[in-house]
Amino acid sequence: MRLTVAQLAQRLGAELAAKPDEIDRQISDVGPVEVAGEKDVTFIADARHIDKLEKSRAGAVIVAERIEGLAKPQLVVKNVSAALIEALNVFAPQLKRPVAGIDPTAKMGQDVKIAEGVSIGPGVVIDDGVRIGLNSVIGSGCKIGENSRVGENCRLDSNVVVYHNCKIGSNVVIQANSTVGSTGFGYCFIDGAHRLIPHNGGVVIEDFVEIGANCSIDRAKFGETRIGAGTKIDNLVQIAHNVVIGKGCLIAALVGISGSCKLGDGVVLGGQVGLADNVKIGDGTMIGAQAGVMSDVGAGQQLIWTPAIERKEALRVIGSVMRLPKLAKQLKQLNNRVKRLEAAKDDKE
Amino acid sequence: MRLTVAQLAQRLGAELAAKPDEIDRQISDVGPVEVAGEKDVTFIADARHIDKLEKSRAGAVIVAERIEGLAKPQLVVKNVSAALIEALNVFAPQLKRPVAGIDPTAKMGQDVKIAEGVSIGPGVVIDDGVRIGLNSVIGSGCKIGENSRVGENCRLDSNVVVYHNCKIGSNVVIQANSTVGSTGFGYCFIDGAHRLIPHNGGVVIEDFVEIGANCSIDRAKFGETRIGAGTKIDNLVQIAHNVVIGKGCLIAALVGISGSCKLGDGVVLGGQVGLADNVKIGDGTMIGAQAGVMSDVGAGQQLIWTPAIERKEALRVIGSVMRLPKLAKQLKQLNNRVKRLEAAKDDKE
Amino acid sequence: MRLTVAQLAQRLGAELAAKPDEIDRQISDVGPVEVAGEKDVTFIADARHIDKLEKSRAGAVIVAERIEGLAKPQLVVKNVSAALIEALNVFAPQLKRPVAGIDPTAKMGQDVKIAEGVSIGPGVVIDDGVRIGLNSVIGSGCKIGENSRVGENCRLDSNVVVYHNCKIGSNVVIQANSTVGSTGFGYCFIDGAHRLIPHNGGVVIEDFVEIGANCSIDRAKFGETRIGAGTKIDNLVQIAHNVVIGKGCLIAALVGISGSCKLGDGVVLGGQVGLADNVKIGDGTMIGAQAGVMSDVGAGQQLIWTPAIERKEALRVIGSVMRLPKLAKQLKQLNNRVKRLEAAKDDKE
Repeated sequence: MRLTVAQLAQRLGAELAAKPDEIDRQISDVGPVEVAGEKDVTFIADARHIDKLEKSRAGAVIVAERIEGLAKPQLVVKNVSAALIEALNVFAPQLKRPVAGIDPTAKMGQDVKIAEGVSIGPGVVIDDGVRIGLNSVIGSGCKIGENSRVGENCRLDSNVVVYHNCKIGSNVVIQANSTVGSTGFGYCFIDGAHRLIPHNGGVVIEDFVEIGANCSIDRAKFGETRIGAGTKIDNLVQIAHNVVIGKGCLIAALVGISGSCKLGDGVVLGGQVGLADNVKIGDGTMIGAQAGVMSDVGAGQQLIWTPAIERKEALRVIGSVMRLPKLAKQLKQLNNRVKRLEAAKDDKE
Repeated sequence: MRLTVAQLAQRLGAELAAKPDEIDRQISDVGPVEVAGEKDVTFIADARHIDKLEKSRAGAVIVAERIEGLAKPQLVVKNVSAALIEALNVFAPQLKRPVAGIDPTAKMGQDVKIAEGVSIGPGVVIDDGVRIGLNSVIGSGCKIGENSRVGENCRLDSNVVVYHNCKIGSNVVIQANSTVGSTGFGYCFIDGAHRLIPHNGGVVIEDFVEIGANCSIDRAKFGETRIGAGTKIDNLVQIAHNVVIGKGCLIAALVGISGSCKLGDGVVLGGQVGLADNVKIGDGTMIGAQAGVMSDVGAGQQLIWTPAIERKEALRVIGSVMRLPKLAKQLKQLNNRVKRLEAAKDDKE
Repeated sequence: MRLTVAQLAQRLGAELAAKPDEIDRQISDVGPVEVAGEKDVTFIADARHIDKLEKSRAGAVIVAERIEGLAKPQLVVKNVSAALIEALNVFAPQLKRPVAGIDPTAKMGQDVKIAEGVSIGPGVVIDDGVRIGLNSVIGSGCKIGENSRVGENCRLDSNVVVYHNCKIGSNVVIQANSTVGSTGFGYCFIDGAHRLIPHNGGVVIEDFVEIGANCSIDRAKFGETRIGAGTKIDNLVQIAHNVVIGKGCLIAALVGISGSCKLGDGVVLGGQVGLADNVKIGDGTMIGAQAGVMSDVGAGQQLIWTPAIERKEALRVIGSVMRLPKLAKQLKQLNNRVKRLEAAKDDKE
């Protein structure tokens, strides 16, 4: 794909600030300001980067406000992020659309309903009673268990496994090698052995959820494990049985959410965060990377560290910890000074 | 499945304490006390929850001791957990049994022995010399490498990969997308490059082991990596080469066990725990979530934190750490007071 | 495979120090000094283990320097590690070589170029425009996306998924269930929802890289995610979009490397290490297990802990932390002593 600066501006709904000889310049890709070349459009999402623009070889720039005196065509937009997403879509590599239809090597169960436009890849196994909605794409090697449902416009990439009785909404993406609906880690110790608690519940994944590669989302013992609409999950994330995650959350890679945790809406968990069993986290709370959360957290908080505490307090504590060897030395010196004072006092008495 | 209260009591071997008009009440599911409805049986595994029973809409309750004055049929059992498991099995969703036989799309090697009742799913690859015992179920897309053995009544879910020369016992479950027998992370730095140490050993998984989804269990350099009978492993767990795990252990999600670690029987590792190379952990020891264990630990210990120390000591240390900014302030004030005392002393001298 | 001690010495290019009646002794395996039997050759990679040799039942030993008075044939070599690797290769289990050719159940796209000697396993899906070099082996159930390239002598084990536009060099190993080229975790919050930033870039994996099982390596937003030549990656590792890793690095299991991090050459990351976004790590730096790195680190450093600090300093800080409850007690006692001094002073005044 190649567009002139003028065509791109139109495509992005941008106001174009350019010299006449610049508007026909060809643009064929998007690049960050440091590496963009003459055929790339770049962007300034953060005013701190404006000074890098002068040196940038980019052929054009997407900005939120016109920069006076810049020797480069500017595409002025209301929302740079939205325009960037649009530009990236314009110049995305052209990939072959998955062909609608069921690959002859797929194995289809009984009483299966597949809507129009659905693509079922090679080697897929669809068990009895499955429903798949309009235009969804099921990648090669996927397995969808009995009575599970997949909504419209979903994309399950290769080798995703969805167990039985799971409900996946519409516009959901699940990347390769992820597992949905595995039996959770719930055992009772009876007569000297760990006996599995049957997991009769399922998993509900609401609309517009996106799940990365190599994730595991366990089914519920009773009821359901639920991922709220618009929540995005990175790679290698563990979500245990009966977890309920609200809407619009962000869960970074290698996070472990233990059984029956409840997250509000808009919660953000950094990479490698761990939540203990049954922890509740309020709306909009952010937990920093690697933190371990052992008890409930209210809404709108920012926590870091293990055990996780309020961010500012944690920074104070961590600062003190780092100075601790010095502090211990001071204490020792003070002890000696007090000894001398005591000795002086004893001498007088 | 639907049973009357009387039928359910009989099925669970429970003593029934109910009014005559209650014994024919229909029960069709199991639910926790807060959410159970009229057609659910609930359970009281912990006496603290008894007061919630009054308000519960549950149609019946499984209890360890009869509760006087409760307006609800009671199924009195010796072991509530065991009865709960039985009840969950009674009301489990009815799934189609995997069909015995080899799917025509499976690829079978030479000198393979498959016992009666075994189900080999679509797209499975079984290499030369593999043995699979009675009634085991190999899910779609699995691969079982040369000379590996799977015992009786095992369940390997879709897309599990077992490399060559691995021995899996009987009644073993391995959930989707897990890997058994991958080559471990062992390199020697020779002539400026990391050279892989060949992993000639295998993996032994004993009877009644259950392994979650998306786990990796590496084969041994020499001898074997071994998971002891009845040990249960959650999702996304890493078990390195030559690790030996005892019987009846519980390993939670995202745990990393480094090379040649040795765990006794009944060891419990919380989520995201990490063990350094060659660490030995004694029988029955529990390591709390996210802890990092750098050296050997005896039997019957409870450790938390990184570096992992005895739980009570760790709580004391963590408590002190949290008060550290206050402590630092006190030290500063004390220093000033000592200064004043020193000044007063100097004045007099 | 069975060799006499003399044949093995020749094979390893070792100088043989043995009695005449020892040189025809049969050796059929390799074992560590504690467990090696009569038919095993053992090795002494570390002089501290020499005293274990006397008691070892091993049939022969690989050593760097001849040990006087040892009643065992010795294979004296320049580099014990290199000889150990060679010996392990000699006695490796004999596995069937994958058959060259394309399995009839594989699904091949258009304009695909497969070199000689390549083996494409059952159920593999190769999309349009893919190139695969000489003698590479693509395991069952793999998927290779549009326009991706795999070099010569590569091994992709079962169920590996490589997305479109990824470039894999030669002599690369990717173990089972790993994912390369998944879309990264990059969102903009626009009009109340997280909107995915399209990932137009790819992944470049250079020669001699080895990647463990169940890993996820994300494609780039712009440009590429790159793993440098000879870098080795353990299981369950997360590498985010636009990460650049140098040559000859070692990345242990369950590590999470956040977006746009840059690692130099020869960097070593211990298990469960986490790097925050955009962190740069200099050549040869080692980060200890479970550490959390929040800011750039120079070359040749050794860091541990969260937040990661220089190793020696960290050990000092951790030591102080462990003594903190004692320290707090000392402070309290000191406070009382100062009080007494103050009271005495007040009495006099």
